[in-house]
Amino acid sequence: MSAAPPDPTPDTTDVRERTYAWADPQVFAAPARELDGIDFFEKLGEGGFPPPPINATLGMGLVEVSDGRAVFELTPQEWHYNPIGTVHGGVLATLADSALGCAVHTKLAAGTAYTSLDLTIKFTRPATLGSGTLTCEGRVVSIGRRTATAQAEITDTTGRVIAHAVASCLIMGDS
Amino acid sequence: MSAAPPDPTPDTTDVRERTYAWADPQVFAAPARELDGIDFFEKLGEGGFPPPPINATLGMGLVEVSDGRAVFELTPQEWHYNPIGTVHGGVLATLADSALGCAVHTKLAAGTAYTSLDLTIKFTRPATLGSGTLTCEGRVVSIGRRTATAQAEITDTTGRVIAHAVASCLIMGDS
Amino acid sequence: MSAAPPDPTPDTTDVRERTYAWADPQVFAAPARELDGIDFFEKLGEGGFPPPPINATLGMGLVEVSDGRAVFELTPQEWHYNPIGTVHGGVLATLADSALGCAVHTKLAAGTAYTSLDLTIKFTRPATLGSGTLTCEGRVVSIGRRTATAQAEITDTTGRVIAHAVASCLIMGDS
Amino acid sequence: MSAAPPDPTPDTTDVRERTYAWADPQVFAAPARELDGIDFFEKLGEGGFPPPPINATLGMGLVEVSDGRAVFELTPQEWHYNPIGTVHGGVLATLADSALGCAVHTKLAAGTAYTSLDLTIKFTRPATLGSGTLTCEGRVVSIGRRTATAQAEITDTTGRVIAHAVASCLIMGDS
Repeated sequence: MSAAPPDPTPDTTDVRERTYAWADPQVFAAPARELDGIDFFEKLGEGGFPPPPINATLGMGLVEVSDGRAVFELTPQEWHYNPIGTVHGGVLATLADSALGCAVHTKLAAGTAYTSLDLTIKFTRPATLGSGTLTCEGRVVSIGRRTATAQAEITDTTGRVIAHAVASCLIMGDS
Repeated sequence: MSAAPPDPTPDTTDVRERTYAWADPQVFAAPARELDGIDFFEKLGEGGFPPPPINATLGMGLVEVSDGRAVFELTPQEWHYNPIGTVHGGVLATLADSALGCAVHTKLAAGTAYTSLDLTIKFTRPATLGSGTLTCEGRVVSIGRRTATAQAEITDTTGRVIAHAVASCLIMGDS
Repeated sequence: MSAAPPDPTPDTTDVRERTYAWADPQVFAAPARELDGIDFFEKLGEGGFPPPPINATLGMGLVEVSDGRAVFELTPQEWHYNPIGTVHGGVLATLADSALGCAVHTKLAAGTAYTSLDLTIKFTRPATLGSGTLTCEGRVVSIGRRTATAQAEITDTTGRVIAHAVASCLIMGDS
Repeated sequence: MSAAPPDPTPDTTDVRERTYAWADPQVFAAPARELDGIDFFEKLGEGGFPPPPINATLGMGLVEVSDGRAVFELTPQEWHYNPIGTVHGGVLATLADSALGCAVHTKLAAGTAYTSLDLTIKFTRPATLGSGTLTCEGRVVSIGRRTATAQAEITDTTGRVIAHAVASCLIMGDS
């Protein structure tokens, strides 16, 4: 492979392909703001909305949600890999950002919305195909009228911590 | 979508589909460690290696690299979107983590490797399809024998800062 | 006051003064490295070493330590204040950094040492004289051969979260 | 020290003492909010206010300020030291938090105020008495109606980076 670039007949034996589908994300915008956070997730759980596009792109999903808490799962795939053969840290960051954001969202009243201000994630152990399904639990630590903070932990099937994260969210009201 | 449980006649009119390909990431492992960082990227630039899988999955690419510096690009797509119709923060985190890591990698001698210890990213402005191609420039701030730090900035086509980030890397030697 | 700057006879009625003492910090260097972490803290608890200078300067102290865990206390004083009449965020950062570092130190074998690579702290509620004594509990989240991560939470006397933090430490061995 | 419990004849030969003074911090509260940020610092520079208490406690001072930028200085002292004989990371965090906050403050209109939401600091090189005066320059990276971000770098007298930091601030308006 290292000698192949100008080759007019590229070696495709080790090329893999993937096809996936997603739905128009605009379906979320109005209900996410009009419903109380916890009602929004209830409707989502009942299949009331399709998953957002990024969930399909990275193969992750929300599996559990309760007051101030959200759990996502993602099963590592080769197409998550960085150059050194482990799940790219950005994939773990996406998983954490999702769990942190949804945990905060459960606390919001109808008429309010949130936006993530930041994410700090610590990578503590590499994730690979051998890790099995990763679980990311996000929990609200603090919530006020204008901001919230949350923390998340990603564990593998044996309970080892793969990464942990904290984030701040800005809460935007009706007024 | 095809599994949308309670709906016997799913509306598929707004479903989109994407197919993409990537190559076996294992081709990177040995040369990434055996070459000086800057030589590794030169060979990469000449097409000596295929891009890593995550680049294909998220549609991002390394466009420029020099001593202590790496630039990535990503053009927002609907399949990067979160539920509220903007590029998911995790996509920006992946872009930043890539630029930060490659900037550090340019500084490594043959026989050493690095791993990202963490990422802190500040989201300062939403990215959307209208942002045009995002540019992420990563730069090494500090490098020692065992650790390095780097910072990155993501800007849109008009130069506005979409996000900025810092990270620490651990450097692992031969011995 | 706003009209007073060129006044040749400054009003000193609202000036406060403080005197404090500390001991030579060099007494720590050797035993911190020669003892197992947990033995070091046991000796410290028995009065085997004076507190480090920064503890005296900021009026904070280690009150509890166990395997992978350390608790510090600090009672807000006017001399901790920032311009807007609350405890400066840097004082909370110092408290958190101390608890995080000591929590990691408890896990170290004789012949190893650690250094803090970073600190991320979220300020969730202002601390004032009215907060009463602040408690900061640090806990190790992950520890490997070369790095460790820890998290800390600062609470007031009613249990409200004033700040929370995460950090990475580098572990340096004998060899 | 005077309480060192098990020692009947404490060795006080290596005990040091320091006395310092500060002024009532309440003088800041009203003008900090009533003036444009840049006017506030101009008045401060003219000696219109005493320095805040924490500046006296840690021996740091604002030495330069301009639109979106603030520079603090601190000269390491033994009373800044942690147990291992270097300036405690929390002291560097206090310096960075001050420069970051003031840089944001310069951008505020009269009638608004800010509060620090967080601080992320990377410690890249130990600071000691031998470092000479440390300079910390903070700069605003991004400012909107509700939040701002800033970055800071601490360097020693030879220009080496001792630490670097990023932070988010919440901006609170009149309304």
